[in-house]
Amino acid sequence: MNPEDLLCRIRIVLCQTHHPGNIGAVARAMNTMGLSRLHLVQPKTFPDAEATARATSSVNVLEEATVHPTLDDALVGTTFAVALSARRRDLGPMFSSPRDIMPDLLRYAETGEVALVFGNETTGLSNTDVQRCQASVTIPTRPECWSLNLGAAVQVLCYEARMAAFAGLPPPVDQRVTPFSSARATHEEVEMFYQHLETAMTDSGFYNPERPRRLLAKIRRLFGRAGLEKDEINILRGILAAQQALTVKEE
Amino acid sequence: MNPEDLLCRIRIVLCQTHHPGNIGAVARAMNTMGLSRLHLVQPKTFPDAEATARATSSVNVLEEATVHPTLDDALVGTTFAVALSARRRDLGPMFSSPRDIMPDLLRYAETGEVALVFGNETTGLSNTDVQRCQASVTIPTRPECWSLNLGAAVQVLCYEARMAAFAGLPPPVDQRVTPFSSARATHEEVEMFYQHLETAMTDSGFYNPERPRRLLAKIRRLFGRAGLEKDEINILRGILAAQQALTVKEE
Repeated sequence: MNPEDLLCRIRIVLCQTHHPGNIGAVARAMNTMGLSRLHLVQPKTFPDAEATARATSSVNVLEEATVHPTLDDALVGTTFAVALSARRRDLGPMFSSPRDIMPDLLRYAETGEVALVFGNETTGLSNTDVQRCQASVTIPTRPECWSLNLGAAVQVLCYEARMAAFAGLPPPVDQRVTPFSSARATHEEVEMFYQHLETAMTDSGFYNPERPRRLLAKIRRLFGRAGLEKDEINILRGILAAQQALTVKEE
Repeated sequence: MNPEDLLCRIRIVLCQTHHPGNIGAVARAMNTMGLSRLHLVQPKTFPDAEATARATSSVNVLEEATVHPTLDDALVGTTFAVALSARRRDLGPMFSSPRDIMPDLLRYAETGEVALVFGNETTGLSNTDVQRCQASVTIPTRPECWSLNLGAAVQVLCYEARMAAFAGLPPPVDQRVTPFSSARATHEEVEMFYQHLETAMTDSGFYNPERPRRLLAKIRRLFGRAGLEKDEINILRGILAAQQALTVKEE
C-alpha cells in the first residue's frame, strides 16, 4: 500500500483533553506528517477558537474530527490500538518504544484501521484506558523530566509513523537535487588542480619542495573531505591563475 | 562520554522568535530530552510570562537562556552547527535528515560544543544564516503541509538527538521490568497446560479427538503468540480445574 494511504489509516485519539489549544496543535502535527483522522473522547471544549488558531492551515483536520462519549466508541472498527504512557503500567499490555512499535502498527494498518491513543494533560491515560489497547509506548525522556506537551508528543509519534512508512524509500527528488551543484570532479581534474596549486605555492615562496613538511598531504586531506565538484575546480584554478597573472605583471 | 553529558553540549539556537509561548514550549521540549542550553538571537519578547507558563516545570532552561544580537554571537565556541530548514537552499551547506545527521552531531559534541539552529515562525532562517552552519536538515513532512510549529520541530530534533545518544544502550531498568510479570513458562509447563485443556475440552464435548479439525493447532498458535508466563499457566489451569470440579459435582 502507498505510504500516504497507510498513514491515513492511523487515527489519533485524544482522551479528555483540557486545553483546546492543544487540540489545534495536534491537528497541525498530524497534518504535517500525513495523518488526518482525529477522534476526541470527551474534550473539555470543542470546537473552540483557540484550537482553530493553533491549527493554522490544518483546520481541515479539526473540521473532520469526531467527538465520542467513550474510548471504546472512538476505537470502533480498529484492529490495533497503541496507548501513549509516560510509565509502564502494572498489568498493562505489550510495552515498547515509538520507534519499535511502528512496523507493527503499519503492518496492521495494511489490513484495517489502527489508533494511537493519548491521555489528558495532567493525568495521562487511566489504567482502564491503557488496558483497552493492544500495546503501549513511552517516549524516551530524561528520567527527571518525562512530561511532554500533548502536541509535542503527538508530533513525535506521527513523525515516527511517517519515518517508518517511508523507510527504505528514496527521498523526494527535490530533496536530492542541489540546483547549483555540478558533477563531481574526476581524479585527473583533481590532480591537475593540486599540481596547479603546488606550482603557484612554489612560485610564491609559500611552499618549499625541499622542505615539504606535510603541507601537500594536509591540502589533499582538506579537499578530499570536501569532495570537489567540476565547477569548484574551475573556481579554485581561476583564483590561482588570476593571482599568478598579477604576480607576473608586478615583476 | 556519558550520553547525558553529550546531550548537554548541544545548544538550541532560536533566531528572531516572534511568540514567547514558543520559547517556553522549546524549553520544555529540550528539558524532556536532556538538553539545557538555550540561546536566543533577537527574540521579539523575552523574558515573558507566556514563555514561563508554557515551559511548565522547565523554567530553569529559560532562566539560564542567553540573548544574543547576532547568530554569529550565539555560535561562538561551537565547532558544528546544523540549520533546520523546510527546504533545500541554493548554495546551502551539506543537506541531510535529522536522523541521518545525529551521529555526526554527536561525534563533534564529543570534543566541543555544537548547535541546532531554528528560524522564526513565519520565514524560517535566512539564506545568510543557513550558510553560517555546516549542515542543514529538513524534517520529512507531507509535501503539501511542511510547516511544523516551532516547539514541535525542536521536540523532534531533540528527540532524535536523545535516541541517537542512547542508541545501542539498553533501556533503563524501570522500562524493562513489569512488576506483575512472572518468568516465562518452560516447554513442559506449556505442554502440560495444553494436555490439561485438551482433556477438559474432550470431557465437555467441545473437542472430539476423532474429528480434531485444526482446533489444537489454532489454540497453540494463539498461546504461542502470547508467550505464556508461569503465573498465567497457573491461572489458566486453575480456571480449567475449577470448571472440571463443578462438572463433577453436577453429574
